[in-house]
Amino acid sequence: MYVVLVYDISLEDKGAKRWRSVFKICKKYLSHIQNSVFEGEISKVQLTKMQNELKPHIDKNLDSVIVFKSRQEKWLEKDFWGKDNDMTDFML
Amino acid sequence: MYVVLVYDISLEDKGAKRWRSVFKICKKYLSHIQNSVFEGEISKVQLTKMQNELKPHIDKNLDSVIVFKSRQEKWLEKDFWGKDNDMTDFML
Repeated sequence: MYVVLVYDISLEDKGAKRWRSVFKICKKYLSHIQNSVFEGEISKVQLTKMQNELKPHIDKNLDSVIVFKSRQEKWLEKDFWGKDNDMTDFML
Repeated sequence: MYVVLVYDISLEDKGAKRWRSVFKICKKYLSHIQNSVFEGEISKVQLTKMQNELKPHIDKNLDSVIVFKSRQEKWLEKDFWGKDNDMTDFML
């Protein structure tokens, strides 16, 4: 399936460390397209694996992670209204 | 159609002002679901109107705005892995 993952990690309670962990795990499974946005084709098994890896790094009271799932990428059209692609990959 | 809009506004060059403007315009047309993420059902005409309103506030070299469009909301499943809903609406 095709997914878009967006996250917002609070800076509270060692948030910067959580942010980096979440970023690194997402990057293993998906493509980075904006500061806190990843996308990509992924299997159900891999998605569950990623979710389990992320779990200890997400604070249920502070952080938000939303995953949009579509059975096929073609069902989702993508437009860039600002710069074409985020070049923040050098951050980590 | 159903859209998910994610934005990343650079803090450079009066970015905080641009961020607030982009936030306010998006909020007129869509629902706020995470710090810099909006979603909602919108017509083609309204989407173009929003895009035109946003244009002067988006710096093509610094800012990133990505719009995912799906013909129907049911084609997109949504999962919350952190807290259920962002409560940052009080910010503005």
